[in-house]
Amino acid sequence: MSSLEIKSKAFITDNFLLESKIAEELYHSFAEDLPIIDYHNHLSPQLIAENKPIANITEAWLNEDHYKWRGMRANGIDEHYITGDASLEDKFLKWAETVPFTLRNPLFHWTQLELKRYFDIDSILQTSSAASIYKEANSILKDKTPAQLLEQMKVEVVCTTDDPSDSLEYHQQIRVLNFYTKVFPTFRSDNLFFIQQDDFFNYMEKLGKSADIEINSFESLLRAIDERIHFFHLNGCRLSDFGVSGAFTIVDFSNEEVALIFKKKLNNEALSDVEIDKYKSSIFIYLGKKYHEKNWVQQFHLGPIRNNNKRLQQLFGADAGCDSIGDYAMAESMSKLFSELDATNQLAKTIAYNLNPSQNEVFVTMLGNFNNSDIAGKMQWGSAWWFLDQKDGMEKQLNTLSNLGLLSRFVGMLTDSRSFLSFPRHEYFRRILCNLIAEDVKKGLVPDDIDFLGKMIQNICYYNAKNYFKFN
Amino acid sequence: MSSLEIKSKAFITDNFLLESKIAEELYHSFAEDLPIIDYHNHLSPQLIAENKPIANITEAWLNEDHYKWRGMRANGIDEHYITGDASLEDKFLKWAETVPFTLRNPLFHWTQLELKRYFDIDSILQTSSAASIYKEANSILKDKTPAQLLEQMKVEVVCTTDDPSDSLEYHQQIRVLNFYTKVFPTFRSDNLFFIQQDDFFNYMEKLGKSADIEINSFESLLRAIDERIHFFHLNGCRLSDFGVSGAFTIVDFSNEEVALIFKKKLNNEALSDVEIDKYKSSIFIYLGKKYHEKNWVQQFHLGPIRNNNKRLQQLFGADAGCDSIGDYAMAESMSKLFSELDATNQLAKTIAYNLNPSQNEVFVTMLGNFNNSDIAGKMQWGSAWWFLDQKDGMEKQLNTLSNLGLLSRFVGMLTDSRSFLSFPRHEYFRRILCNLIAEDVKKGLVPDDIDFLGKMIQNICYYNAKNYFKFN
Amino acid sequence: MSSLEIKSKAFITDNFLLESKIAEELYHSFAEDLPIIDYHNHLSPQLIAENKPIANITEAWLNEDHYKWRGMRANGIDEHYITGDASLEDKFLKWAETVPFTLRNPLFHWTQLELKRYFDIDSILQTSSAASIYKEANSILKDKTPAQLLEQMKVEVVCTTDDPSDSLEYHQQIRVLNFYTKVFPTFRSDNLFFIQQDDFFNYMEKLGKSADIEINSFESLLRAIDERIHFFHLNGCRLSDFGVSGAFTIVDFSNEEVALIFKKKLNNEALSDVEIDKYKSSIFIYLGKKYHEKNWVQQFHLGPIRNNNKRLQQLFGADAGCDSIGDYAMAESMSKLFSELDATNQLAKTIAYNLNPSQNEVFVTMLGNFNNSDIAGKMQWGSAWWFLDQKDGMEKQLNTLSNLGLLSRFVGMLTDSRSFLSFPRHEYFRRILCNLIAEDVKKGLVPDDIDFLGKMIQNICYYNAKNYFKFN
Repeated sequence: MSSLEIKSKAFITDNFLLESKIAEELYHSFAEDLPIIDYHNHLSPQLIAENKPIANITEAWLNEDHYKWRGMRANGIDEHYITGDASLEDKFLKWAETVPFTLRNPLFHWTQLELKRYFDIDSILQTSSAASIYKEANSILKDKTPAQLLEQMKVEVVCTTDDPSDSLEYHQQIRVLNFYTKVFPTFRSDNLFFIQQDDFFNYMEKLGKSADIEINSFESLLRAIDERIHFFHLNGCRLSDFGVSGAFTIVDFSNEEVALIFKKKLNNEALSDVEIDKYKSSIFIYLGKKYHEKNWVQQFHLGPIRNNNKRLQQLFGADAGCDSIGDYAMAESMSKLFSELDATNQLAKTIAYNLNPSQNEVFVTMLGNFNNSDIAGKMQWGSAWWFLDQKDGMEKQLNTLSNLGLLSRFVGMLTDSRSFLSFPRHEYFRRILCNLIAEDVKKGLVPDDIDFLGKMIQNICYYNAKNYFKFN
Repeated sequence: MSSLEIKSKAFITDNFLLESKIAEELYHSFAEDLPIIDYHNHLSPQLIAENKPIANITEAWLNEDHYKWRGMRANGIDEHYITGDASLEDKFLKWAETVPFTLRNPLFHWTQLELKRYFDIDSILQTSSAASIYKEANSILKDKTPAQLLEQMKVEVVCTTDDPSDSLEYHQQIRVLNFYTKVFPTFRSDNLFFIQQDDFFNYMEKLGKSADIEINSFESLLRAIDERIHFFHLNGCRLSDFGVSGAFTIVDFSNEEVALIFKKKLNNEALSDVEIDKYKSSIFIYLGKKYHEKNWVQQFHLGPIRNNNKRLQQLFGADAGCDSIGDYAMAESMSKLFSELDATNQLAKTIAYNLNPSQNEVFVTMLGNFNNSDIAGKMQWGSAWWFLDQKDGMEKQLNTLSNLGLLSRFVGMLTDSRSFLSFPRHEYFRRILCNLIAEDVKKGLVPDDIDFLGKMIQNICYYNAKNYFKFN
Repeated sequence: MSSLEIKSKAFITDNFLLESKIAEELYHSFAEDLPIIDYHNHLSPQLIAENKPIANITEAWLNEDHYKWRGMRANGIDEHYITGDASLEDKFLKWAETVPFTLRNPLFHWTQLELKRYFDIDSILQTSSAASIYKEANSILKDKTPAQLLEQMKVEVVCTTDDPSDSLEYHQQIRVLNFYTKVFPTFRSDNLFFIQQDDFFNYMEKLGKSADIEINSFESLLRAIDERIHFFHLNGCRLSDFGVSGAFTIVDFSNEEVALIFKKKLNNEALSDVEIDKYKSSIFIYLGKKYHEKNWVQQFHLGPIRNNNKRLQQLFGADAGCDSIGDYAMAESMSKLFSELDATNQLAKTIAYNLNPSQNEVFVTMLGNFNNSDIAGKMQWGSAWWFLDQKDGMEKQLNTLSNLGLLSRFVGMLTDSRSFLSFPRHEYFRRILCNLIAEDVKKGLVPDDIDFLGKMIQNICYYNAKNYFKFN
C-alpha cells in the first residue's frame, strides 16, 4: 500500500459527521458557536504565560503526543523519527507517511480536522502532500501565540494539571495578561500517594518547601496539604485530579495506624502492601473532605496500567506511549470511598473516568448511588477518556450514560491534551452528540422538538459545565 | 433548560419503535395480541388478594420505584420529595419536573408508555402537564383494582417473589378468587444464605416455625427446607430465585464440615470467610438438587453490589436506590456449581441473569455447557436485567444470545417490577424484538419468510415460557 | 415451531452481507478473488497427506464440530444423535432439524454458505430438505479429496496445529505431494506447561524421544525444546501457539528455582501454585526468546475456561463442546511477559487472541505498547476467536482495532477449524470487512477513494499476512 495515495477531495466538510438534516440543524443552530470550557487538559501554563508562537508543526504535533508515537511505532517507523534525533522536517514526513495507515483511527480525523481549522488545509496529509503542508502550517504557526490559538477556538476556560507543590507562578502571570481564555490550575494529587517509592521523601521535602512546613510526620503532611489546597484555591483552582496507574484499593484504617506507617517510611523501613493501602486510603479520605470544604470538583482517572514497556520507560521516562488499559476490579473500592465521604455529608462534586470500557456500566451506576440535592448532576461519569476518546467510545459513553443516568445533566467534553491544536475535539464531540440525538429523532425515540433538544445539547456542550464548576 | 418545555405531540404511536413495514407486520400480526407470562416480579400478593384500587398515581409510581428515585436524585431533587414527607401531589410534581431530564433513559419511554396504555394520555409528562395528568390518572386509578389492571394487559401468569418462611396465605386467597391472572409464588432463597449476619438465627427461628421444625442443627435446617419447598410446590410454585449481593463463590465442602460450621454459628462463634463460603456452597448444592427433584426452574440473579450508600441504607434500609453493578469474576464458580449438579444428573432447568453486561458472553457460553435433552433450551440466559432492562441492553442481550446460543429457544421477557403499571414493558420488549428481526430481514441476514419469523417471535414472547415453566 | 418450515428462496446471493453498491464494488473488485492464507487451524495433516475423500457430510460436518454439538444440545437433541451411536444419516437429520432454530447464530450462515460453495445447494437445510441434501452432498464429497477441497477455495497456505513431540511425518509426506496448498506445522506448546498434571513425565518421555534426549532435568528439557524448534523450523514451521485454559500468570523466577521445581516434580513431590507459576513463566520466557531467534510469530490464545461439564469430559475427553469464556484479569501478566522479552530485544512478532470480548480493549492497547520498527504491525491483536468468530464479533474486533490501533496493518482472518469445509469463513470475513468500510464511506468517515480503500482491504485479506509470516 506504500505506493498508493489517497485522492484528496475536501474531507472535512461543513456537515462532517452529521448524517441528516436534523443533525445539521442541531449542530449549526445550537452547538457550533458555543464557547469552550476545557476543564481538564495538560497544557503548559509556562507556554501560555510566555505566549510565544510554537512555530513548527512538528513541535506542536509530535513533541509530546504519545497517540501519534504509538501510531508511528505500529506502522513500523524507527524510533529515530519518533522520539529520536531526526530533524523536525524528517519527523513530520514520517508522520505524514503514517497518516494514510491510520484510517479509521481517531488520529486520521484529528489530523484532518486540525489542518482544516487552524490552517484551512483541505488536502489529506500523506507523503505526497507532506512538504507543502509542512511549509504552509509553519508559515501560519510562526505568527500565532498560544493565547491566539485558544481565543480563535473560543476557549473560555482552560484548566491545567498541576502538582500540589507547584508555585503557580505562570498562572499568576497569566492572570495579569488578561487573555480571552481564563486559565486555572488543577490540584493533581498523584505525588501524594507514592509512599512505596524510594524517593517519596524527596517529594515530601519539595512539597514542604512549597507550603513552608517541615514534613516530618503525617500530621505535618496534612497541614502542608491544607496549605497547598488553600493556595490553589486562592489561585482560582476549583478542581482536583487523581490519575495514578494500577489497582484502586480503599481499605479501613485509623489515623494512628497511618501516622505510624508514615513514621516507618520516614525511618526508611519497608512497608507492607496493606500498610501502603492504608496510607493511600487515608489520603483519599482526607483530600476528599478538603475538596468538599472548598466546594471543588474531585476528578478520578481510574484504570490505566502505565509504563508497560520498561525499555522505553528507561529511555524516555513516563508518558512514552507505553501506557494501556488495565483490568482491575473497582466497584467495591469506589463504593467504600464515596460512602464514607457521604456518611458525614462530605462528599464533594465528583467526576470519575474509567479507561476500561467494560467498566462503563459499573462506573455510571456506582456514581448514581451518591447523587443528592447539593446540585443536579452532582456525581458525573466522565467523558470518554484517552483511548476511548474517539467516535465509537464517545457514542458508547453517551448511550450508556443515557440509559443508566441522566445525559441531560452531563458536563460534557474536555481535551485532556498536551497540544494547543487539539481544541477541534470539542467540535468533534459536538457533531457526534448532535448526530446521535438526530438519529433518535428519526427513529421516534425522542420527541421531535428541535428547540428542546437543541437546548439540551447546549447544556451538555457548555452550560452544564459552567454551572457545575463555578469558576470565578 | 428548566424553563423549556417539550412540545407535546403524540409520542407513543402505533408503530413506536418499529422502524420498517416488516417490523410493523411482525409486531402487529404476531406479537401484539399474545398474553403475558410474567414469570418474575416483585408484586405484592397481599395487594392482589385484597384487590383494592391503588387510587393515587404517586403511590402506584413512586412509592417503591428506586429507578425513579435515582433519576430524581440525579436531577438534584431533595430527598423530601423522593422518600420524604412531601405530599403525594408535590412528589408527583417533582417527578414530572424530572421527566424531561430523563430523555434517552428508559424512564422517559416507560413513563409515556404507561400514561398511554393505562390512561390513554398522549401528553408528555412535565411541569406544565403535571397537574392535569395527576388528576386524570387518579380519576381512572380509583376504579381499577390490581386484578383489573393485570387482566387489561392480558397478564396470564404472575410469579411473585416470596421468602421460604412465607405462609403464602395471600396466594391461597388469590387462588379462590379465580382471577384471569394466575398468581404463583417463587421460592426466593436469599435469607438461607446470610449465615454471616448476626440475626441469622432469628431468621432460622422464623423459618423453623413456618416448617414446624426446630432448627437446631444443619440437618434440621435441611429438613425445614424440604418441608418449605414441598409446601411451595403444593401452592403452585415452579420457580426458585437467588439474588444476594456481591461475589458468587462455590467451594468444596463436606457435609460434616458444614454441620460443624452451622453448630459454631449456633454457639455464637465467629465464622471465617472460608467457612461462610463452604456453608453457602452446600446450600446451593442442596437447593439445586431439591429444585431438580421438583422439576422447578432455578433462577440466579448475579452481580449486584447493594446498599452502597450507607447513609441512605440507614435511613431507608435496603432497596433505597443505592444498588449498582458489581465487577466480580464468576465463570469458575458457575462452572463448579452447574458441573457438580450435572454430574449426578440433578441439574434443574436454570435461568441465570447477569447485571454486569461485560459478563454477557461469559454467562451465555457457560450456561451453554450444560444443555441436554431434558428440554430444549434447558439452560437459559436471562433477559436483560435491572439497569440493563432498556432498549440498548435488550438488543445486546438478544444479539449476544443469538450469536452464542439459540435465540429461538429463549423464554423471553419479565418485568421484575414492584408496580402494577409496569406491564407495557412486555410490549416494549416485543416491539424491540420485532424491530431487530425486521432489520435482519432488510439486510438479508435471515430468510425473508415472515410467517416463520413471526412464529419464532411468538415462541420467544409466549410459547417458550409456557412450555418451559409448565405451570398448572 | 417444530412443524413450521422456512420457505426456501436463494439465501446466499452474490451480494450476501453487502448492503451497498460501494460494498459490492469493494468485495467483487478487490477481495473476492484473493487466495487464502489460513495461518491457524486444526486440520489433520494425516488426512491431507492420505488425501482420501471424506465421503460423508456427517463426517465432514459433525464428527468434530463442537459448535454444532452445542447448538444441538441447546435444541434438546439427545446425545445419542450428537456424539453417540446413531447412524450418520440420523445424525444429519437431527442436525437438519436443529438448523432453523439456529437463526441469527453463525451456524445458520455457515451452514448455508458451505452448502452453496461446496455443493451449489440453495435450499435451506431443515427437516424437509435434509434427505435430498444428504444425498446430494455425499454424491459430490465422494469424489473430492481434501487437497481438491482446499485448492477449490484457493487456499494457498494452511498452518496446522502440532504437538512439539510430533514427528511431522505427514507434513513431510505432504511436501513431496506438491499440492496447490502449502501445509506448514505450528509449534503448539501447551503440553510443555502441564507440570501440575500427574502424567507430565509421560509427556516429557514422549518429547524426549522425539528429540533423542533423555529429559531428566530442566536443562535437558530446554535442550529438547531447542531441538524440536529447530526440527519444526526445518519443516517449514514459522508460528508457535499457546492455548491453555484458565488464568494466565507471569511471575518472577530464577533459573535455579525452576531447575529445583523441575527436580521436585521428577521426584514426584507436590508443587505449590507459586512453583507451578514460576515453572510456567520460565517456559514462556524461554520459548519466547527461541521464537524470536527463529523469527517466528508467537500466538497466544488466552481466556477460555475448558471442560466445564465434568460428566461430558469423562465421557468424551476434551473438546466435547463444554468449553466457554473465562473472566480472568490478564493485563499485568501480558505486560510482564512482553516487557521482559522486549527488554533484551527478544520479543518475537506476536499475535494475541482474547476469548472474552470485554478484554478487547485491554488486549489491543497492551499489544500496542510493544510495536517497533522490526516490522510494521509487529504486535497483532488476533482476529475474533471461537465464540466471537461471527458477524458481530468480527465487526467489534475490526472497529476496536481501528479505534485503538492500525486496522490497515492487520494480518486478517483464519478459520481455526477442524473441518475441510470451513474455508468460506474467509469469504464471510471479507464480505463483512468490505461492508464495514463501505458504511464508513457512505457516512463520510473515510475518504471516498475506492482504489485506496480496496488496496487496504486487499492487504488485510492477503498481503499483510504474506509479508508478516514469510513462509517459504
